[in-house]
Amino acid sequence: MKKNKVVVVLSGGMDSSALLVWAIAKNYDVTAITIDYGQRHRKEIGYAKLLCDGLLVEHKIVDLSSLKTLMGNTALTGDIDVPEGHYAAPTMKLTVVPNRNMVLLSTAICLAAECGASKVLYGAHSGDHPIYPDCRPEFVERLSRAAEVCWYDKITIEAPFVEKTKAEIVSIGAGLGLLWALTWSCYKGGETHCGSCGTCVERREAFMLAGVDDPTNYVDTTPIKTLIESMAE
Amino acid sequence: MKKNKVVVVLSGGMDSSALLVWAIAKNYDVTAITIDYGQRHRKEIGYAKLLCDGLLVEHKIVDLSSLKTLMGNTALTGDIDVPEGHYAAPTMKLTVVPNRNMVLLSTAICLAAECGASKVLYGAHSGDHPIYPDCRPEFVERLSRAAEVCWYDKITIEAPFVEKTKAEIVSIGAGLGLLWALTWSCYKGGETHCGSCGTCVERREAFMLAGVDDPTNYVDTTPIKTLIESMAE
Repeated sequence: MKKNKVVVVLSGGMDSSALLVWAIAKNYDVTAITIDYGQRHRKEIGYAKLLCDGLLVEHKIVDLSSLKTLMGNTALTGDIDVPEGHYAAPTMKLTVVPNRNMVLLSTAICLAAECGASKVLYGAHSGDHPIYPDCRPEFVERLSRAAEVCWYDKITIEAPFVEKTKAEIVSIGAGLGLLWALTWSCYKGGETHCGSCGTCVERREAFMLAGVDDPTNYVDTTPIKTLIESMAE
Repeated sequence: MKKNKVVVVLSGGMDSSALLVWAIAKNYDVTAITIDYGQRHRKEIGYAKLLCDGLLVEHKIVDLSSLKTLMGNTALTGDIDVPEGHYAAPTMKLTVVPNRNMVLLSTAICLAAECGASKVLYGAHSGDHPIYPDCRPEFVERLSRAAEVCWYDKITIEAPFVEKTKAEIVSIGAGLGLLWALTWSCYKGGETHCGSCGTCVERREAFMLAGVDDPTNYVDTTPIKTLIESMAE
């Protein structure tokens, strides 16, 4: 039987990498797309490529880095220091690029239309909802309704993890044999994960809560429990 | 009174240029955005800049030309010859870049979020509906519903000309004193408008139907009525 084509939006981070192996396990014919939107470092793009090469998945990288010329001075694309600490903290709003995900999804839909895919898969999860409006179920549903009528063939957007926690995503990825060493989270983009920026803390906490061994090398080796406790003080 | 901020998606063509002067006449505080999506020539981008300079409107040009690496060989971005003849002809489907307008509008929404604009104005018109799904009212309404929840502040998309013909848009622009010489339509991107490609024919026909003098220099000076009659044969 002919497989259904889908496009997976792949950042190179944990969630979208787990989504990629999830889509393969669902027996979809997968093309992955990674978008350079002018993020502070390109490290995660290289990891996205590594993972696709390893999984023999077709992978497109699109350079939309000029988007950053529109943006203010967010920590992701500008000169502000990356905030340390727990991801849910208000300072993390600094890491938001306005409407970034609509641009990424629109671009993925271009590719879907081009290659005849009927779905775009998107790795938004419940932990993102409090700070990122464009990770919420309502946003995904509405954009999917627009996607349905943007082209001659019907295309939809699905976010299978949108109600899942990051720890649940770690469990799913681990169950499907995802090589976590081929994923990148740290916003700092150093040689190894720093271990203490917001997204490193989130990564480490997710492994801990899922009860999955974390294979990542971190510069800051303070145990994650200690780190979270010290942040709560 | 403080003016309401809007972002106008400006291609440099007739419709979006008329929209720009329409928005200024509505007393909006306007920022225009032009997106290089890898179109065959950049001529219309230069015209967009000229018009904004003349009208003292803030103008952002964003280079998303890497989008074309996703696309097939359409006449707009690839190596296929631009089809001659009337715009409504089926061959004009060749000029469609899949989902282009969702990418343009998403990018305009980034800018709107960044600069505090509550609206993105979009120059889709009724003549585009038959061939471009992403110019239809249904698409605009659905994408606007997504835009409303993509960011902390509510942003909407409006297409004031979506039910108007191109001739009606010419009347509106002419009534507002738009300098048509600062707009560009021809897909061929030569020194002057060719006069016989699909979009030149559409331009000439719109001036004729609106009863507005067409100030454009065309290479092919066959009267527009004769040209349209010969195409109908």
